[in-house]
Amino acid sequence: MKQRIFLVGLTGSGKTTTAPLVAARLGWPWVDLDHLIEERAGETIPQMFARSVGEFRRMEAALLAEVAAREPVVVATGGGAVLDDANRELMHAAGTMVALEVTAETAIQRVKARGPFPPLLAGGDAEGRWRRMREERAPYYAEADFIIDANDPDPQRVADRVLAGMAARGHITAQVAPEIIPVPLPQTPYEISVAWGALGRLAEQIAALGLPQRLTIITDTTVADLFLPGVLAQMQGAGMAAQVITVPAGEASKSVEQLSAIYDELIAARHERGEGIIALGGGVVGDLAGYAAATYLRGVPLIHVPTTLLAQVDSSIGGKTGINHPMAKNAIGAFYQPRAVIIDPAALLSLDDRLLREGWGEIIKYAAALDAELFEHLEARAGTILSRAPEWLTSIIARCARLKAEIVSRDEREAGPRMLLNYGHTIGHALEALTGYGTLLHGEAVFLGMAAEARIAGRLGMIPAELVARQDALSRAAGSPQAIPPLAPEAILEATRVDKKTRGGRVRWVLPTGIGAATTRSDVPDELVIDVLRAWQAL
Amino acid sequence: MKQRIFLVGLTGSGKTTTAPLVAARLGWPWVDLDHLIEERAGETIPQMFARSVGEFRRMEAALLAEVAAREPVVVATGGGAVLDDANRELMHAAGTMVALEVTAETAIQRVKARGPFPPLLAGGDAEGRWRRMREERAPYYAEADFIIDANDPDPQRVADRVLAGMAARGHITAQVAPEIIPVPLPQTPYEISVAWGALGRLAEQIAALGLPQRLTIITDTTVADLFLPGVLAQMQGAGMAAQVITVPAGEASKSVEQLSAIYDELIAARHERGEGIIALGGGVVGDLAGYAAATYLRGVPLIHVPTTLLAQVDSSIGGKTGINHPMAKNAIGAFYQPRAVIIDPAALLSLDDRLLREGWGEIIKYAAALDAELFEHLEARAGTILSRAPEWLTSIIARCARLKAEIVSRDEREAGPRMLLNYGHTIGHALEALTGYGTLLHGEAVFLGMAAEARIAGRLGMIPAELVARQDALSRAAGSPQAIPPLAPEAILEATRVDKKTRGGRVRWVLPTGIGAATTRSDVPDELVIDVLRAWQAL
Repeated sequence: MKQRIFLVGLTGSGKTTTAPLVAARLGWPWVDLDHLIEERAGETIPQMFARSVGEFRRMEAALLAEVAAREPVVVATGGGAVLDDANRELMHAAGTMVALEVTAETAIQRVKARGPFPPLLAGGDAEGRWRRMREERAPYYAEADFIIDANDPDPQRVADRVLAGMAARGHITAQVAPEIIPVPLPQTPYEISVAWGALGRLAEQIAALGLPQRLTIITDTTVADLFLPGVLAQMQGAGMAAQVITVPAGEASKSVEQLSAIYDELIAARHERGEGIIALGGGVVGDLAGYAAATYLRGVPLIHVPTTLLAQVDSSIGGKTGINHPMAKNAIGAFYQPRAVIIDPAALLSLDDRLLREGWGEIIKYAAALDAELFEHLEARAGTILSRAPEWLTSIIARCARLKAEIVSRDEREAGPRMLLNYGHTIGHALEALTGYGTLLHGEAVFLGMAAEARIAGRLGMIPAELVARQDALSRAAGSPQAIPPLAPEAILEATRVDKKTRGGRVRWVLPTGIGAATTRSDVPDELVIDVLRAWQAL
Repeated sequence: MKQRIFLVGLTGSGKTTTAPLVAARLGWPWVDLDHLIEERAGETIPQMFARSVGEFRRMEAALLAEVAAREPVVVATGGGAVLDDANRELMHAAGTMVALEVTAETAIQRVKARGPFPPLLAGGDAEGRWRRMREERAPYYAEADFIIDANDPDPQRVADRVLAGMAARGHITAQVAPEIIPVPLPQTPYEISVAWGALGRLAEQIAALGLPQRLTIITDTTVADLFLPGVLAQMQGAGMAAQVITVPAGEASKSVEQLSAIYDELIAARHERGEGIIALGGGVVGDLAGYAAATYLRGVPLIHVPTTLLAQVDSSIGGKTGINHPMAKNAIGAFYQPRAVIIDPAALLSLDDRLLREGWGEIIKYAAALDAELFEHLEARAGTILSRAPEWLTSIIARCARLKAEIVSRDEREAGPRMLLNYGHTIGHALEALTGYGTLLHGEAVFLGMAAEARIAGRLGMIPAELVARQDALSRAAGSPQAIPPLAPEAILEATRVDKKTRGGRVRWVLPTGIGAATTRSDVPDELVIDVLRAWQAL
């Protein structure tokens, strides 16, 4: 697929606002065709229109051809660019044509906010004129590769829909070799694939697993909005029948109630034992859908398709599934291995910035607890750590997936080394529980937990203060929250006791012993923990 | 332990009613000491009392010594037999002394119903006299091996408490070699032990598994009433701390709500990941507690201690756990292997007759679908098939456990041969669902399901009519219900479609191909099933 995106749509659909946001995430240049025309012509579009519409259209066609020769590029076209058959052919041949669709109300409101009406809407009854224009041009917009709803008042959401739609249709390619990571569990071996563009080949990959053509996609409202139209289009194209179960986005969906609702829908749809469940989404969807797959009919095939960084590097790997108890996170769950984990870093192009940062909490956990080389590599790139470049994302995700897969295949049930993956999680879980799940994102809590636990290790003399500072600096570069919520240290300590790692009433801490090295300890005095938390909060 | 039971208790506590019921289950003779005295003396006890209380007591002591020389025997003593130190010493030395405890109201009501008041209660204010007698004798009854509540208006329940109390304390021994059946699953091997008297050594056996001293027993109201006092006494004696979670008896407890309540209690008690859950009870408790163990903290150690025949031969073996969905039985569940299955056939001495019979539904299933030798062995013993003799129960249970363990270790996830264990279950589950879970017991539904499915096989020409008749005859001997509930055949057929074995919308039937042999078929025409059901119902 060529690296060109053409945004088309009527006046007021938000092409000019959306294009730079799309381009920023991709790291591509962008151009606004109308601005380019005005710049080259040395006059405004209303002036050109008043003089000669024909001349304007000819210039528009010429400049579209000019920008379509650039690559990569995001182009916000003018509203009428689609009228010309040759223009549409050109855009199709050169890249992806995405139509932004809005209601007349949205369009008129936006156009009004910009100043005087443009020529085609001027002269009274702007809304009537806009509606007639829509009627006339609808067949041309329908030729777009895909159409998105652009009514959202948050322009980033509109841009995310464009990016996600591209990813879900395999329209954002990159020259990055895919990485296949085997998880050699004795009874349930499977592969994790980290491949830029994988989401665009999802139907094909599911078919290759030999699963029946009927399946159920479990996702959440946010992810459904972004990826579902593209994914369903693929499934339909491949002759698959997909039932979709959509849960509200957010940690609150990891509940007994939501799980029950999923069972109801699976039973109502007569989802059978051999048919797959696709967990399409972030950690919440993966845990919830994974647990539903583990327990519906005592287990049906599960495919993880993680769409957040946190899910891609951590939660989709290793077979942990579960839901929360009102009194304890992940208190109810099962170890259940998927048939495959299909990771597409391109899905992260549409990921909210905060969610990108929280994913880095787990990445830095891997580095700090297990992988000194990765830690130093990240330190060296600290300035651009949050980049979404294909090679960068693919390599980091694959590295973490490999680390986790390796540990999980040695210790599926967390009896030994797998416990080290809980670095930052004892305090982290306590913070999540005390602030109410969803206030702090999980990865944010892990960042804070690691900061606290590194200080505990420091106080115990296990690591030098310099190492705590290095971890802090790297965390800051990756977008760690800087302040621990104002909670009583005693309450935090108390909340650590319901942790699943507790043995004989004693909390099992995971503490660093150096860069990329950690161990577990059950002999950390309560007073020391409270002291550390108090001192850290005082900063 | 010697095979003698001495029932002691005040007048009206039900010794004479209870003794024959206890003896019948054990297949032991029984004797009523007061009747024996009257017989030997040739006069009534009121007459002897009127003449000389001392002489009565001497004769009582002499005859107690005489019957205490018999073995086995159940003795209903007279109310005052415990007054004599030598009598109590004799009973303790000779066997088990069980005290029946009732309220004054119960006692007076029972004594009144028998006719005139006995000498010690005659002369007015019978209840006051009874209460004073209780006060006086309480210390002697307290010396009993155990005390049970004998207020129940159903005398069989009182007898069951005696029998269960004996079993739970290891007081019913028999010279039957225990059978140890390995379940060699690659990742989770464990042993099933079938051992008469095992319940009396439960604490010791749990300790031998190397589990922590803290554990949780999950049981139901019926089983708690029977076995819990004895089991808890053992645990306490062994220094173990056992939390008990008791659910209402019955299939309705296999619900999301009851499961949630169990999670709440486990979390409230801070049950930790290494601590064991003991599933003490029948199939419902095994499935529910097993599923709780499978999913609490993603899995804690589970020990099955089945107390019904159905649970001992079938549901406790093989790792299936789960709960019901309102629309589909066992729709929610997990495969989860226990650390051990501890089977004590002596627990069945206190099992309700109907529950004993339903257990035979699954035993005949093994014979009919898998084991021709067992089938013929059962046919040869059809007349005494429902005996509770130690050797008989132990050998049959061990045979079935071995059959199931062998199939499960070849096919843990029911991808192949394990499916044959579902003989009788397609129609059986449909009948259970349509009549409302708990109306038909599971084993009863399996009996009926096998009858229907044998007829389907017959109609398909897979087996001769004579074989259907043999299966019917054996089922009848084992107490199968004789009539299918009056349900529309179309409704039964429809209900089979939600079965977990369904593939591509087609029901996978398990059908016999001979004695001790079966296969699966998905090509059974709907009309044939309806025809068979209609013809069978018409009988």
